[in-house]
Amino acid sequence: MSAAVQAERLVLTALPDMPLVRAGDDLPALILAGVGRAGLRLEDGDVIAVASKIVAKAEGRTVELKGVAPSDRALRIATETGKDARIVELILRESREILRIREDLIIVEHRLGFVCANAGVDHSNVHEGQGLDGEWVLMLPEDPCRSARSLRERLQAESGASLGVLVVDSHGRAWRMGTVGMAIGLAGLPALLDLRGRPDLFGDKLQVTQVGLADELAAAASILMGQAAEGRPVIHVRGLPYPLREGSMEEVLRPMELDLFR
Amino acid sequence: MSAAVQAERLVLTALPDMPLVRAGDDLPALILAGVGRAGLRLEDGDVIAVASKIVAKAEGRTVELKGVAPSDRALRIATETGKDARIVELILRESREILRIREDLIIVEHRLGFVCANAGVDHSNVHEGQGLDGEWVLMLPEDPCRSARSLRERLQAESGASLGVLVVDSHGRAWRMGTVGMAIGLAGLPALLDLRGRPDLFGDKLQVTQVGLADELAAAASILMGQAAEGRPVIHVRGLPYPLREGSMEEVLRPMELDLFR
Repeated sequence: MSAAVQAERLVLTALPDMPLVRAGDDLPALILAGVGRAGLRLEDGDVIAVASKIVAKAEGRTVELKGVAPSDRALRIATETGKDARIVELILRESREILRIREDLIIVEHRLGFVCANAGVDHSNVHEGQGLDGEWVLMLPEDPCRSARSLRERLQAESGASLGVLVVDSHGRAWRMGTVGMAIGLAGLPALLDLRGRPDLFGDKLQVTQVGLADELAAAASILMGQAAEGRPVIHVRGLPYPLREGSMEEVLRPMELDLFR
Repeated sequence: MSAAVQAERLVLTALPDMPLVRAGDDLPALILAGVGRAGLRLEDGDVIAVASKIVAKAEGRTVELKGVAPSDRALRIATETGKDARIVELILRESREILRIREDLIIVEHRLGFVCANAGVDHSNVHEGQGLDGEWVLMLPEDPCRSARSLRERLQAESGASLGVLVVDSHGRAWRMGTVGMAIGLAGLPALLDLRGRPDLFGDKLQVTQVGLADELAAAASILMGQAAEGRPVIHVRGLPYPLREGSMEEVLRPMELDLFR
């Protein structure tokens, strides 16, 4: 028996030479072309991880600051944080609740249900490939799960393969420095792997019971994506050792009554 | 130019058929044998990610509950949480501070500096391959960075390659369900990738500035490790798109004055 056959392998490939994405671009077509350039063919069980930034750009989620009128509340928080009041206004519009405020930092519960800094309103690299003058920011995709489902349908239709799609954003953590890739949208992929009640080798119930698979995969893809304008916004994943299934971000968002740190 | 040459690839391989680890086992030798079985040869820039559980087992960090005398404080918290008072006693010994207490859950700052549930004191699969009767639990390694350095020295000496070593544990998160693999010890690997002040394509300073690379890598490795007794406790990683360097867990542990959620 060959050793290489026994070894379980997870292979992540950054699609090479992806172009800068503009509003209205056909993202599935760009991804399929990138898959071809990588010398790959999509197979059942493959996952495509996409940086939220290019999903948002394709969906035209850029906002020119000139047109944003800050509310009184935004002006107050701008003073408190030293942030641009127009950006604060956009953060407030994207948020359900403000959790913490510090200099240059507003931690919120995003309208999509997760906790993140500055509601994902991003000021860096917004111009790239957009042909935009003036001051612009980029919001997160309107509905990243809908974006993932739509991407998945096209990629599946064109390839004939059964796929998972993951939308990845970089988030900070409560007690650790540094951002890590996290899932903000997905389709055809479990967000959570439920091992509750599965006995271990000796019949004890497993203590660790639910695994944040989509977040682990987002973190893995993020290693290759790098940051900012490095042109590796789409990662192909092969060899996930779990079957794909329909999934939802609801699985991973902690219900308020289980939230001990708000 | 071949497309496959252009594509950046991160390849994670679970070392096959790793034996159950007992106290005193020669972990570097077991890992080198597993690398061979996988058909791999260690190369400069490779990273070996090891489940903290087998590091702890090799170091004899199993504790028999029979010999643990709970303090008054442990008895009080045991009543409050419904946990075994002897396990609570061990959790207290492993902790600097208790952050939250709920039924069957004690969230602490571990003596190693990170926030985690139940101080990593683990009740599942402790017997496996240990030849132990009675009730035992497993503590985290005494000093996971020391363990990583020691592993790295041996693996480098035997292979002649310049390597990184990562000790991986599964942790919960503040606002998300499910555990993910996180770094608790490392050697020869940056914990944090510092991109502060690096301009993006258009000269703006990057907003996202520090990347939790070791945690992203731990999460990636954790996908293949699975949970409990599945026999994939060591993952070989090739293709990390960043240079290795000396690293430390201090980089990633959030200083108290920057902790907004305690």
